[in-house]
Amino acid sequence: MATVRLLSDEEASAEALAVFEDIRATRGTDFINNFWRALAHDPQLLAATWARLKTVMAPGALDPLTKEMIYLAVSTANSCTYCIHSHTAAARAKGMSEAQYAELLRVIGMAMQTNGLVTAMQVPVDEEFRVE
Amino acid sequence: MATVRLLSDEEASAEALAVFEDIRATRGTDFINNFWRALAHDPQLLAATWARLKTVMAPGALDPLTKEMIYLAVSTANSCTYCIHSHTAAARAKGMSEAQYAELLRVIGMAMQTNGLVTAMQVPVDEEFRVE
Amino acid sequence: MATVRLLSDEEASAEALAVFEDIRATRGTDFINNFWRALAHDPQLLAATWARLKTVMAPGALDPLTKEMIYLAVSTANSCTYCIHSHTAAARAKGMSEAQYAELLRVIGMAMQTNGLVTAMQVPVDEEFRVE
Amino acid sequence: MATVRLLSDEEASAEALAVFEDIRATRGTDFINNFWRALAHDPQLLAATWARLKTVMAPGALDPLTKEMIYLAVSTANSCTYCIHSHTAAARAKGMSEAQYAELLRVIGMAMQTNGLVTAMQVPVDEEFRVE
Amino acid sequence: MATVRLLSDEEASAEALAVFEDIRATRGTDFINNFWRALAHDPQLLAATWARLKTVMAPGALDPLTKEMIYLAVSTANSCTYCIHSHTAAARAKGMSEAQYAELLRVIGMAMQTNGLVTAMQVPVDEEFRVE
Amino acid sequence: MATVRLLSDEEASAEALAVFEDIRATRGTDFINNFWRALAHDPQLLAATWARLKTVMAPGALDPLTKEMIYLAVSTANSCTYCIHSHTAAARAKGMSEAQYAELLRVIGMAMQTNGLVTAMQVPVDEEFRVE
Repeated sequence: MATVRLLSDEEASAEALAVFEDIRATRGTDFINNFWRALAHDPQLLAATWARLKTVMAPGALDPLTKEMIYLAVSTANSCTYCIHSHTAAARAKGMSEAQYAELLRVIGMAMQTNGLVTAMQVPVDEEFRVE
Repeated sequence: MATVRLLSDEEASAEALAVFEDIRATRGTDFINNFWRALAHDPQLLAATWARLKTVMAPGALDPLTKEMIYLAVSTANSCTYCIHSHTAAARAKGMSEAQYAELLRVIGMAMQTNGLVTAMQVPVDEEFRVE
Repeated sequence: MATVRLLSDEEASAEALAVFEDIRATRGTDFINNFWRALAHDPQLLAATWARLKTVMAPGALDPLTKEMIYLAVSTANSCTYCIHSHTAAARAKGMSEAQYAELLRVIGMAMQTNGLVTAMQVPVDEEFRVE
Repeated sequence: MATVRLLSDEEASAEALAVFEDIRATRGTDFINNFWRALAHDPQLLAATWARLKTVMAPGALDPLTKEMIYLAVSTANSCTYCIHSHTAAARAKGMSEAQYAELLRVIGMAMQTNGLVTAMQVPVDEEFRVE
Repeated sequence: MATVRLLSDEEASAEALAVFEDIRATRGTDFINNFWRALAHDPQLLAATWARLKTVMAPGALDPLTKEMIYLAVSTANSCTYCIHSHTAAARAKGMSEAQYAELLRVIGMAMQTNGLVTAMQVPVDEEFRVE
Repeated sequence: MATVRLLSDEEASAEALAVFEDIRATRGTDFINNFWRALAHDPQLLAATWARLKTVMAPGALDPLTKEMIYLAVSTANSCTYCIHSHTAAARAKGMSEAQYAELLRVIGMAMQTNGLVTAMQVPVDEEFRVE
């Protein structure tokens, strides 16, 4: 249950609908997931978020699957249920194997554990890690 | 300033020192960073953490650099200052280019932003993301 | 599904019921939301929490709607599902317009994003921000 | 100590410098705070972040001070040291009185407390908070 | 709804099943909760996690109930719904009284509140708290 | 560096000073730690926070040391540097042995790890954990 209604294509404004159409064209599917239907209440935010996401997640120095796994790692640490589901699905759609997923989970668990230990002991940063 | 003293080689127990030696041999360096010197107060936890880290971060279905970037993403979302410094240094040591780092930062920023929007609106998970 | 049963008026102790009655009188409604019914297991905590909330959220140097939006911002960053729903409803009841809500969401998204970037880069605090 | 060097005007690229100039012109000051100097390593991210911030924080349905206080609330819940300092300074520069600041702190403390209680008890969302 | 299927005894590998059997023997019950069924996709992670949990949660300098309450406190601050439910149930199974639970909740609420106040004001650590 | 000045006894208002005196009397020491000196800008919040803390942390169904360890666990998960230092010091002052501290750290690390795994896999709550 959301704090806003999810807008159907019929309810979305022309500006929001134009973003929906670009999402469909870019992804090659008719499916618009709920995040965008919720954001459609603010077409400007919808357009800015989609434009930025398209740029950020495009292939570059990092491949799209690596980016999805990083996205998923952040979303997990932030306990974002929706984000975890959508980016797990996206990572699988981009070819994440079960072996890769298992290793991703191991790294997340390891990082969470040492984050907790380091923070509890307030370990000071080594001089060796200093930049310049 | 830590909540425990960082143990020098001279202060560490034989069990802790054995872990230090394995860290040195595995990494090919004499340097022992502060996290391990803090953990040395509990040699059993030190040994268990190092053994697990060595397994988890080894090359596998994901390469070591990808694992470091995922570790860094989790550490950032958890605001773990020490972990951010040590895993940024580790990622660079494993070959992370400035272009890769820039893209990592972009993905982290993007994920944080949409995590916030999704959580604020409590977007319900799409049926399409359901597993089985 | 909660970790405690939600207490009905019939099940609540006299001390808890007295708090329920003050909530009803203060808000001008018969409705007692689930948070208070869960807290009723510990009448002292219930009474202390309600007393403090009434003071903190009263009009003062900040108006009640501004306070609700700040409450909602914190609850979002903490991923508190119940709190997000209840304080979004409260903000709307206190007159939050859809335009105000949209801007609130934009600020939350922006803050989350720059929080992530700043934390990842561990930006040092400028001397100019120092107090005295 | 940051994970990147803070770029001086002399070290910044032409694209980054153009953003610095727009920050200076918009804010009517020569001062460029460290966040932008850190981001300058990625001029595209710098430009996109500044452009978005300028839009989001402009006066609208919410006034700039209210926006700063919401930003500060999110930054606090995320434990972002730099962000807390910079947005506290910004809120004061925009006229936040000590009385307003005191009430902001009270609301943050109250929200944190009830976030914890609600989450620990996993209070279910009331039907009354449902949208439509 | 999980991002992985929960494996039944029939679907689990021999290695995973051996862990299930140890869980059953250790706990003296046939019941295997969902966390282990989800982890069973990665028998090595399942085995490592269970082995570590058995060691960490065993009676020692702290009694098992105190450990469960600490576990629950961390899980609450991390907003881990499943963990909150499972460790509340475990604490009750280990004898947590309603009076103890009420005090646990009070401490969690108090800690969250002062964490927020301290972080918002960025209170510097007293020299008196320094170790050596 | 704080966002407020820490008030000396000379600068504190009469109302704040009365709280300082009660802290001194209750703890049997002249030392007032920085948290209270920062809160002194808002004597009402100072008084309310101290009164509540005194009640919550008093011996009851849980002993004061157990409460300090729970407080520390929450503060760690929230990355509250000051709180970690002050409550580690307080726990030691209340008799926490190095063996107890080591086990506390192990539980925190374990909880962080499984919190991450559970959240990443979005494990559904078992029916067996349901209350009533």
